[in-house]
Amino acid sequence: MRCTKSCVMATFAINSLLDYKTEKYIVTKNKAVGVLHRLFQLSVIGYIIGWVFIVKQGYQEIDDAIQSSVITKVKGTAVTNTSESGLLVWGPEEYVIPPQGEDVLFVVTSFLETPNQKMGYCAESYKVANARCSVNKDCKKGKMVESGHGVMSGKCIRNNENSNGTCEIFGWCPTEKDIKPQKPLLKNAENFTIYVKNFIQFPKFSFQSKSNILETTDQSYLKKCRYDKKQYPYCPIFRLGDITRRAGCNFQDMATLGGAIGIVIQWDCDLDKGTSHCNPEYQFTRLDATVSNKSIAAGFNFRHARYFKNAAGESYRSLCKVYGIRFHILVHGKAGKFAIVPLVINIGSGLAVMGAGTFFCDIVLLYLTTGRKSYNDKKFEVLKYEKQHTSTDVDIS
Amino acid sequence: MRCTKSCVMATFAINSLLDYKTEKYIVTKNKAVGVLHRLFQLSVIGYIIGWVFIVKQGYQEIDDAIQSSVITKVKGTAVTNTSESGLLVWGPEEYVIPPQGEDVLFVVTSFLETPNQKMGYCAESYKVANARCSVNKDCKKGKMVESGHGVMSGKCIRNNENSNGTCEIFGWCPTEKDIKPQKPLLKNAENFTIYVKNFIQFPKFSFQSKSNILETTDQSYLKKCRYDKKQYPYCPIFRLGDITRRAGCNFQDMATLGGAIGIVIQWDCDLDKGTSHCNPEYQFTRLDATVSNKSIAAGFNFRHARYFKNAAGESYRSLCKVYGIRFHILVHGKAGKFAIVPLVINIGSGLAVMGAGTFFCDIVLLYLTTGRKSYNDKKFEVLKYEKQHTSTDVDIS
Amino acid sequence: MRCTKSCVMATFAINSLLDYKTEKYIVTKNKAVGVLHRLFQLSVIGYIIGWVFIVKQGYQEIDDAIQSSVITKVKGTAVTNTSESGLLVWGPEEYVIPPQGEDVLFVVTSFLETPNQKMGYCAESYKVANARCSVNKDCKKGKMVESGHGVMSGKCIRNNENSNGTCEIFGWCPTEKDIKPQKPLLKNAENFTIYVKNFIQFPKFSFQSKSNILETTDQSYLKKCRYDKKQYPYCPIFRLGDITRRAGCNFQDMATLGGAIGIVIQWDCDLDKGTSHCNPEYQFTRLDATVSNKSIAAGFNFRHARYFKNAAGESYRSLCKVYGIRFHILVHGKAGKFAIVPLVINIGSGLAVMGAGTFFCDIVLLYLTTGRKSYNDKKFEVLKYEKQHTSTDVDIS
Repeated sequence: MRCTKSCVMATFAINSLLDYKTEKYIVTKNKAVGVLHRLFQLSVIGYIIGWVFIVKQGYQEIDDAIQSSVITKVKGTAVTNTSESGLLVWGPEEYVIPPQGEDVLFVVTSFLETPNQKMGYCAESYKVANARCSVNKDCKKGKMVESGHGVMSGKCIRNNENSNGTCEIFGWCPTEKDIKPQKPLLKNAENFTIYVKNFIQFPKFSFQSKSNILETTDQSYLKKCRYDKKQYPYCPIFRLGDITRRAGCNFQDMATLGGAIGIVIQWDCDLDKGTSHCNPEYQFTRLDATVSNKSIAAGFNFRHARYFKNAAGESYRSLCKVYGIRFHILVHGKAGKFAIVPLVINIGSGLAVMGAGTFFCDIVLLYLTTGRKSYNDKKFEVLKYEKQHTSTDVDIS
Repeated sequence: MRCTKSCVMATFAINSLLDYKTEKYIVTKNKAVGVLHRLFQLSVIGYIIGWVFIVKQGYQEIDDAIQSSVITKVKGTAVTNTSESGLLVWGPEEYVIPPQGEDVLFVVTSFLETPNQKMGYCAESYKVANARCSVNKDCKKGKMVESGHGVMSGKCIRNNENSNGTCEIFGWCPTEKDIKPQKPLLKNAENFTIYVKNFIQFPKFSFQSKSNILETTDQSYLKKCRYDKKQYPYCPIFRLGDITRRAGCNFQDMATLGGAIGIVIQWDCDLDKGTSHCNPEYQFTRLDATVSNKSIAAGFNFRHARYFKNAAGESYRSLCKVYGIRFHILVHGKAGKFAIVPLVINIGSGLAVMGAGTFFCDIVLLYLTTGRKSYNDKKFEVLKYEKQHTSTDVDIS
Repeated sequence: MRCTKSCVMATFAINSLLDYKTEKYIVTKNKAVGVLHRLFQLSVIGYIIGWVFIVKQGYQEIDDAIQSSVITKVKGTAVTNTSESGLLVWGPEEYVIPPQGEDVLFVVTSFLETPNQKMGYCAESYKVANARCSVNKDCKKGKMVESGHGVMSGKCIRNNENSNGTCEIFGWCPTEKDIKPQKPLLKNAENFTIYVKNFIQFPKFSFQSKSNILETTDQSYLKKCRYDKKQYPYCPIFRLGDITRRAGCNFQDMATLGGAIGIVIQWDCDLDKGTSHCNPEYQFTRLDATVSNKSIAAGFNFRHARYFKNAAGESYRSLCKVYGIRFHILVHGKAGKFAIVPLVINIGSGLAVMGAGTFFCDIVLLYLTTGRKSYNDKKFEVLKYEKQHTSTDVDIS
């Protein structure tokens, strides 16, 4: 086969394309720099293999968008006996708010009931500072009491001629008494249990659903077990007293004024190892306390009311200020699976840093060693500049 | 202009700084290694362009902190007829718990009402194992019945002399009957619809808010449409029966004992292409079922109560154990936008890996080919070591 | 010590291992390419130092799995006076739904009460399109009215002989009136305040809990302060009217039909600088409005009911359709802390890109300058191929 001129050139180009070009090296017998260089290379290789791949699993793509569903169920009963409310038995339908088993639930540990409130006129509570008065003029008719319970009627109500009093208001009467609880009323709350069902998925890796409930053939296991970090690490039933203890709090203290506890379920799944290596770990933290600022944020309470109507159709209500502990089930998790992109990024950037080591060794060699002159001459071959003038050249030199 | 000695040195330094230094290469005509090298280079380039940039959009910065707001509204009515509760019509204000249209909502599909409970004395339910008794001694006065409904009074109540009975308790009486539903009572629940309004933002990219509601001029569209993956992929109204079917479940089965369904709204936004390429995709999964552990975690129910007072001011209540389906609207999403850092990371690490290819080709060339001796001699130019002793030198060699 | 043959070889290998090998460079005096090269190097170094490290903190590992707990408390009272409900004073226990101080809370700003509904027979509401009728035949007995309030009884109820009417239904009667609010009834809602307590943790860095409540010795600060971006940026108490204003909305407009507002708490923590540099920033956005689609998604309301029983034990209820603003406290945040992996990735990939610069300068030098022939000859030293035939060689050339 004969070859045209362009064919010849193409053949030549392909040939030269397939030539293997490799950098020319200068070898110096300088042991110090040689050791330095090898040490640097070893430490980078150690970093890539030891730290990035073994410790940090840098060859894995991470999915931290865990898809989680939590169902909770609280069990236990408590008895209270107060002058306002009498003897009462509390079941979960009363002390868990809201009752529908969500991942945030509030367990009542103490309460203050104000029964039989009616819309009407009465004296504002004395704790409302800007409703205190000494004469009727202090109470402007129609004015809304800030942080109070109603609208001023214009009267000032005093127990006797000499003392200060509070303005009369229109609102739900009588107003709530200003009593702070000294100890929790639902003493047995410590023994209540929360059954936490948690189901997770990692959609990115189409990872099948997994739950925190131990797969066991022992049917009675879930009836008897209580979570314990050592003995029953996979038991999903938690005694409230144990939860607060593990969070570093005293239950009766928290129960008196209220608080918030986080139950963190941590899923750390290495999907390269299989699903049986994907197990929940529980942590408990007090959520509403800061290290430096304990006093201001203390306590957790809110009010709710039950509404009734008497035979005449008039409304009345029972106001309940409840103190308690809010439990927040926080599900965190990440799954890692081998992927090519993080592998290349970690290896590539490590190699590039390793290459930079040569740069520093060169500096040592060229500026700090005795043989620097001869190294310099050999390493840098200076090209003698010969100008070639050809009309087609683009002369940008 | 004359130049001092330091000026001369500075000029020299600047001149040599602007010299262009480039590695010297050895060209070998070894085709095998050349082809190997080119193949490796091509595959790395293919990986960078094809996989990282085209498939994985590696030039984009990702924001997966989607800011989402969900408003839900359920519509539909159902009729039930039970001996305890009579003929009842159920509207959303009764069967959706909580009623305020949040992203987690529970739809009642079956219930067991225990009307007119009063605080008082009655026999504990027989299903409470540790309240069973044969004589009064078995019931310790004042003891709280575990997983039960009240405090023991000390009596054992038996139907007749020979049979076993249960302890008498103080609590809400009568206690709930131990009946499991055989089929859902709100049969029409299958035809209820959920209207899901979802509004999203990506704060990192100051991406304007977008909603899952189709922008249409046809005002009646949102009244008529029902979500269908093919016909109406952007219709935000879902029939409950369709949701369970798409999640791979039978509605009547789930409705009997309860369950949890996730409605995942997936936003995958390529902001480089514009907001019209940013559309929701719906997925439906059963959240409370694990592949391996179906029996233990089955069902979802909870109790809630309505409180009444009679003319004498005595409290009584109506306890309702409700079974149903909890719907959880899970909004996932990520937005990608061109950014320089991920581009440099991906290109740089790819190039570094490409450079590493030379290292392996060198190994082949220097150890496995016939010309290895001459390659070696040429590639590695050994510097003859001539010690220079100058007093100012730091001799670290 | 004498050395065996293998010992000699090992010594030789170790010696040659510790030789320092460094690339041989060709130095050209081409200033144009030299300047080009230096400029490229400078811009890459500028990018690494300026953009990646100073602007983007690329040396930090990021934790965006912030662990957050929110407790809210709303304060304020409002008075309403309607013909159905009479004069009413509203406290937080009534207008905040749900009352338990969660991170999603709904504040009632307007309502429509339908008191004293009983299960019974009445005409369906006229707004329910498919319950309109002219003769009894139009109302199929036992048919559930779609989007309606009950089951058809089979009768058509008309005010007079000539007009159209609606089907009679069995359900909660009377049905709700079809009235849209013209202005909010709880006018004072604008002055309500939300106290937001937010506690955060970054578990990955075992960062101690921090709260959004200013640490101050002034005990009255939290009683007086109101959030203001300039004056009180760390005051956690927000006036509802201020929130809507900052979100770019008119409160009275939103209060009439309802809406949803997001209060975003942004924590941007540089843990290398210490916890005092970790402060919340507040942003306010309207969540339920899209730029393009204002009309369809307007408003937010839902219905809830209070249940009563009369002396005869018959149930009746009070249905309340409430309009209002839903506040969603969204806590976003990320913490950065120095880590070795992102540092290596950013430096390494930057260096690799810098190395690629040499490639482009070479192209300029070898193809576009006048001295290209001599550059080419010097840069690429062609190895003369001398075949060596030794039986043990693997000849893959």
